[in-house]
Amino acid sequence: MKFLDLLDKTARRNNSLLCVGLDQSNFELNRKIIDATRDLVCAYKPNIAFYEKDGLPGIESLLKTIELIRETGVPVILDAKRGDIGHTAEAYAESVFQVYKADAVTVNPYLGGDSIEPFAKYEDKGVFILCLTSNPGAMDFQAGIYKTVAQKAREWNKNQNLGLVVGATKPEQLKEIADIAGDLPFLIPGVGAQGGDLAAAVKYGGKHPIINASRSIIFAKDPGTEARKLRDMINEHRNS
Amino acid sequence: MKFLDLLDKTARRNNSLLCVGLDQSNFELNRKIIDATRDLVCAYKPNIAFYEKDGLPGIESLLKTIELIRETGVPVILDAKRGDIGHTAEAYAESVFQVYKADAVTVNPYLGGDSIEPFAKYEDKGVFILCLTSNPGAMDFQAGIYKTVAQKAREWNKNQNLGLVVGATKPEQLKEIADIAGDLPFLIPGVGAQGGDLAAAVKYGGKHPIINASRSIIFAKDPGTEARKLRDMINEHRNS
Repeated sequence: MKFLDLLDKTARRNNSLLCVGLDQSNFELNRKIIDATRDLVCAYKPNIAFYEKDGLPGIESLLKTIELIRETGVPVILDAKRGDIGHTAEAYAESVFQVYKADAVTVNPYLGGDSIEPFAKYEDKGVFILCLTSNPGAMDFQAGIYKTVAQKAREWNKNQNLGLVVGATKPEQLKEIADIAGDLPFLIPGVGAQGGDLAAAVKYGGKHPIINASRSIIFAKDPGTEARKLRDMINEHRNS
Repeated sequence: MKFLDLLDKTARRNNSLLCVGLDQSNFELNRKIIDATRDLVCAYKPNIAFYEKDGLPGIESLLKTIELIRETGVPVILDAKRGDIGHTAEAYAESVFQVYKADAVTVNPYLGGDSIEPFAKYEDKGVFILCLTSNPGAMDFQAGIYKTVAQKAREWNKNQNLGLVVGATKPEQLKEIADIAGDLPFLIPGVGAQGGDLAAAVKYGGKHPIINASRSIIFAKDPGTEARKLRDMINEHRNS
């Protein structure tokens, strides 16, 4: 099944645009979070950095975590922000899609079109290109180019599998990017611990907004309750 | 010892500005390449993508390869092109410097200053920021910002451990960046298989040029002979 179809199917089944970021490497904690939230999310997004920092056991935990998620039918977006020149990008694509078996990945656009194409050629996989991020330093270099990134992503979307990462902490730019990006799905981090604008995320997130929260859910006393709260808050904005 | 001191010491000992890119994951082949070239290089640069694509055995090979290099006293630049928001960048820095024990790393500047600082705060480690890359798509987004990246890198260089990645395939821009970057060391890929300009790399590579070749050496019938040839060619440009 194509990534967007799997995403939409899961979003409908769970009536949810919420993506939970699995940003820690303890497999048993991941199992608890997944058990508690699998009926409340449209996707999971493990960030590979938190697994790599624990060496081989961390990588093993990531492999097991993704295997477990796949059993639930919820798509896995591996947040890896990879980017390298053509033949090296091929190796990264092989890693994320064939070794880790992710359904989608985040990539960094700095190296240009030939760094993205090796991911995009996996037609059934999703590829979310960093456009405008949610951190304080985002505008150091992105200011001059985020609109060009959105425009190019739309042009390059031949396999209908590209998307954009746009932070919820910048609602004005979110609207601007939405106007450029057409039907591209948006992965929107920055809600939750980073304090982003949920209303704007829903309003300008386009046809397929994926709204990510990580720390505010996975480190909560009761991840299921927190996930349900946030899912419902998102749905209120959808209906208003 | 600080990265730049280790680099300069090795460059003097081996009379070499050549860095060999270990861009494949076979440990026994790496051992042969390292044995044949350890007296001919100033650094080794494994690109982590080629290890990640082989899963856990690939990661184990990278760990063993870096351990082996460290025994030779030659510095290891882990080509990982990492970049993420602050607390995630901390996890990546822990991975490259504490798990893999690299002496230096390449990072992607797209996310701005707070994505680089968690690496730079390891004062004894080197941090090479992608500035202008050697691939066909480099100018898709870098055109508007590579000079700003060079300028910011110079400003941010409080620990004297930042450097830039600048492709040898763009000699005019290499000169331009050298004028902006002051004393920052340059890691210069694109020589060898990619056909970059060796004379320009040496001339504009500043005080500490690190000239990388990968495929043309590691897949040669006799890597030692190829490395010696390239080292000597580089040295002819240094003396002319």
